[in-house]
Amino acid sequence: MSRLRLQISMSLDGFTAGPNQSEEHPLGEGGMRLHEWVFPLAAWRERHGEEGGEVNASTDVVERSLENVGATIMGRNMFGGRGTWGEEPWEGWWGEDPPFHTPVFILTHHAREAVVKEGGTTFNFVTGGIESALAQARAAAAGRDVALAGGADVARQYLRAGLIDELQIHLVPVLLGDGESLFAGLSDLDVRLEQREVLAAPGVTHITFAPRC
Amino acid sequence: MSRLRLQISMSLDGFTAGPNQSEEHPLGEGGMRLHEWVFPLAAWRERHGEEGGEVNASTDVVERSLENVGATIMGRNMFGGRGTWGEEPWEGWWGEDPPFHTPVFILTHHAREAVVKEGGTTFNFVTGGIESALAQARAAAAGRDVALAGGADVARQYLRAGLIDELQIHLVPVLLGDGESLFAGLSDLDVRLEQREVLAAPGVTHITFAPRC
Repeated sequence: MSRLRLQISMSLDGFTAGPNQSEEHPLGEGGMRLHEWVFPLAAWRERHGEEGGEVNASTDVVERSLENVGATIMGRNMFGGRGTWGEEPWEGWWGEDPPFHTPVFILTHHAREAVVKEGGTTFNFVTGGIESALAQARAAAAGRDVALAGGADVARQYLRAGLIDELQIHLVPVLLGDGESLFAGLSDLDVRLEQREVLAAPGVTHITFAPRC
Repeated sequence: MSRLRLQISMSLDGFTAGPNQSEEHPLGEGGMRLHEWVFPLAAWRERHGEEGGEVNASTDVVERSLENVGATIMGRNMFGGRGTWGEEPWEGWWGEDPPFHTPVFILTHHAREAVVKEGGTTFNFVTGGIESALAQARAAAAGRDVALAGGADVARQYLRAGLIDELQIHLVPVLLGDGESLFAGLSDLDVRLEQREVLAAPGVTHITFAPRC
């Protein structure tokens, strides 16, 4: 069965991006520290066309996150950043060979033609909302899973709608103090999380949950 | 060496108590759910004079939390709740045989005579601030460790002052949505946390950190 899976790095104080996001700091101030656990890994470097790197307890997490993914969904800020959008047909942060290697469905209010990149990534723009994006992603995935790439606002919409089958948080021992909160405005009245699997690794704890509405 | 240790249950969205704390809900609305992992344990029940209970991966965490503790520090709200304090010499939530079994040092602005309870618990009231409370607790502990019992506001003061040697968070897969935030107002500029040990147990993940200022 095709599952909707969300993997996301979160600070110990609950933020998935730091404050004051900008083109200079797309992850907000300090936000890059949320991802420092992944950059040294050979499994991540290979995905981004680089050689070498480490193997540690996070390797299996990264490899599994890429397995059986047939389509990707993301919010418009994750595609193209704030402010720039709508002015011109900007092609986003991701360069000529984006690391998704699947059809990507971008939630937006502005209809736009699809953008085809190298390596199997096509950016498709969906104006019909989260359920429409999920239906299109599932069709494109042809039985494989759909990865929800973020950001936090889109993740919350899918959590609230009860559409996420697996949530894996990469909990990083960083305090950002402010920024984009993954769970802001949600409580157990909206979604209940069942703890499934915990994996400790250098500089991060990976916890998998099954959301229940 | 006598260490200052903080063990505290926290929701996945960062709260150590729910919203609207009151005498009816001393842990705030939903706050009791933060502690549901501990109540079934034989190790906890024995400490509270009850028989039976479960043994699971949290048992070792509870037993270690009690080992080598010679004194306890807590905030005034944890001793006696909001609103009631100052009106009369109320003796707090804890009954005749409190579960601390050590001298307890309570941070307050109101000087008051010590209250001696059964089972080795004495409540002492400290008006000189967090460093004075720690010095008195260390003297009473006579080489053993000092446990910081909470709440979040007192924990933050000690974190910010760089006085906590070991922080263990019992991370519970609950979303409270609002309440008392453990890290509110803190960032990596105030304290850096080094992840040390991770232990998965039913309904909770125990993560130990070494704070570094």
